[in-house]
Amino acid sequence: MNKNDLAIGIDMGGTTVKYGVVRGHEIIHECEALETKRFDGAKELLPKLIEEINALQKQWPIRAVGMGVPGFTDIRTGYVHELTNVPGWLRVKAGVVLTKGTGLPVTVENDANAMCYAEWAHGAGKGAENMIAVTLGTGVGGALVINGQLYRGSAFGAGEIGQMSIDYRGVMGEHGNAGALEKYVGNRETAARAAALYRKAGQKVKAEECPPHVLAAAARKGDPVAVAVWDEFTTRLAAGLSACVWLLNPDRIVVGGGVARAGSIVFEPLRRKIREQVAEPFHKQLKIVPAKFSNDAGIIGAAAVALSRLP
Amino acid sequence: MNKNDLAIGIDMGGTTVKYGVVRGHEIIHECEALETKRFDGAKELLPKLIEEINALQKQWPIRAVGMGVPGFTDIRTGYVHELTNVPGWLRVKAGVVLTKGTGLPVTVENDANAMCYAEWAHGAGKGAENMIAVTLGTGVGGALVINGQLYRGSAFGAGEIGQMSIDYRGVMGEHGNAGALEKYVGNRETAARAAALYRKAGQKVKAEECPPHVLAAAARKGDPVAVAVWDEFTTRLAAGLSACVWLLNPDRIVVGGGVARAGSIVFEPLRRKIREQVAEPFHKQLKIVPAKFSNDAGIIGAAAVALSRLP
Repeated sequence: MNKNDLAIGIDMGGTTVKYGVVRGHEIIHECEALETKRFDGAKELLPKLIEEINALQKQWPIRAVGMGVPGFTDIRTGYVHELTNVPGWLRVKAGVVLTKGTGLPVTVENDANAMCYAEWAHGAGKGAENMIAVTLGTGVGGALVINGQLYRGSAFGAGEIGQMSIDYRGVMGEHGNAGALEKYVGNRETAARAAALYRKAGQKVKAEECPPHVLAAAARKGDPVAVAVWDEFTTRLAAGLSACVWLLNPDRIVVGGGVARAGSIVFEPLRRKIREQVAEPFHKQLKIVPAKFSNDAGIIGAAAVALSRLP
Repeated sequence: MNKNDLAIGIDMGGTTVKYGVVRGHEIIHECEALETKRFDGAKELLPKLIEEINALQKQWPIRAVGMGVPGFTDIRTGYVHELTNVPGWLRVKAGVVLTKGTGLPVTVENDANAMCYAEWAHGAGKGAENMIAVTLGTGVGGALVINGQLYRGSAFGAGEIGQMSIDYRGVMGEHGNAGALEKYVGNRETAARAAALYRKAGQKVKAEECPPHVLAAAARKGDPVAVAVWDEFTTRLAAGLSACVWLLNPDRIVVGGGVARAGSIVFEPLRRKIREQVAEPFHKQLKIVPAKFSNDAGIIGAAAVALSRLP
């Protein structure tokens, strides 16, 4: 693999399929996104992608294709077990089909892993030996780099930070897991807490009016409700991440997603609260930083993983 | 490294220093243990160990020395940062001193890692790719095998399962960490809960009379207090271990320490409760088993780690 090598990165989500030609950390040519629901599952989307990849191959010397998908995949074979939120993606040999149609080596990776790899290879995780990546949105995702390599676990499921319990008698998660972190720091929960506290304070503010960037701006202006919301938010997130730190003793945590752009309102207390609940060998080399890439991480990461697997 | 190679394994604890000559999973010659407190820290114990190692070298073709210690060590250099519970062990170049005195390659490893390695190489963890080892006693320790290798983390601290929070508003741990698992499933806590429940039931039973094996025997006979204690115990332990499973997606969990010998009273509900709170790709390949070695694991593991590091 050469740093000028080109790969196609595909970031497949429940709403859109974004893709482009990537060199290192740059998308040098981004194509118009496809709407996921306009295709009847894998059987229609994969032929379309083959067509698009082959068109791009005529313009660029593409060496590999990387595809990030929201679900479990077998990285060795490009097999997709299931995409919970995308119909028509049950037991799909995506890697084999795309390779056959394009003649290129194809890597199909979990999307959180792809984003983590983008940060590790080219972003806020550069140089880390052991890294935790966490993405904060409606859901809470995560991925791990261990000894300088993406770590996928025994069934390609590793890194589900959002499902880890922070309260064994707490709010039920989606998998019978009481106290699932996702239920405490997901955007929906944060907005609902803000609306409830505003109501208590006699202010009529709806949950829909409380996305992370609005709450962050309000907190910076000293709004007491927004300040209280972020205080509780960082206490909960620090508890979940501290558990990861005790277990893995990493040197980097990269925080991505909408909340990551809230800046010091989140990062200053988050760093302090983690430091206060782990021993010195666990915090002295630990850097907790916002992700560098936002919407592009999926495309860049998928391409980077694919290039890293070239012989 | 050959399977007939011999190494000296040293298991240093706060009370005794146990050691012997090890081949594979067998201690072929165990020496009389030393009392830790009879030596004034490292400066008296290391010369004594050199004397003992050199005497053993006259009898056996020893290829390496492995020492497990209760604290953080730098495995690369044999440097001991600090042993919290053993006076006179602050910043000790144990590896260098022992190698100089014996002419042998010496590995100084954290004791939980040594025990984990014994199980992985020769015991209940054999064949595992990704494994969590947890030791249940007064404290709760742990260690990890990742991709078939001991994983030590960025500052040799990884695997502190007992410090992970299962309740972010819960009982305070030793490091400012609310909800530390150790405070919920440590032997002392379990005994205290049993005594409290017996009192409530009008029975006078002291906490000292409730070590794990007594509570296990009582539960097997249907004693309702003991049954309730184990039910709560396995709920808490399952929450902590499920968090590890969501993060690491391992294929094996090896449970050691006194509680592990409680048998199906602990293991049956523990397996069920973990299965009930993790998704299928996380439990279908996961085996949860009791440790094979008990008191010998430290000696065997320290020796095995040392042999594994021979060129």
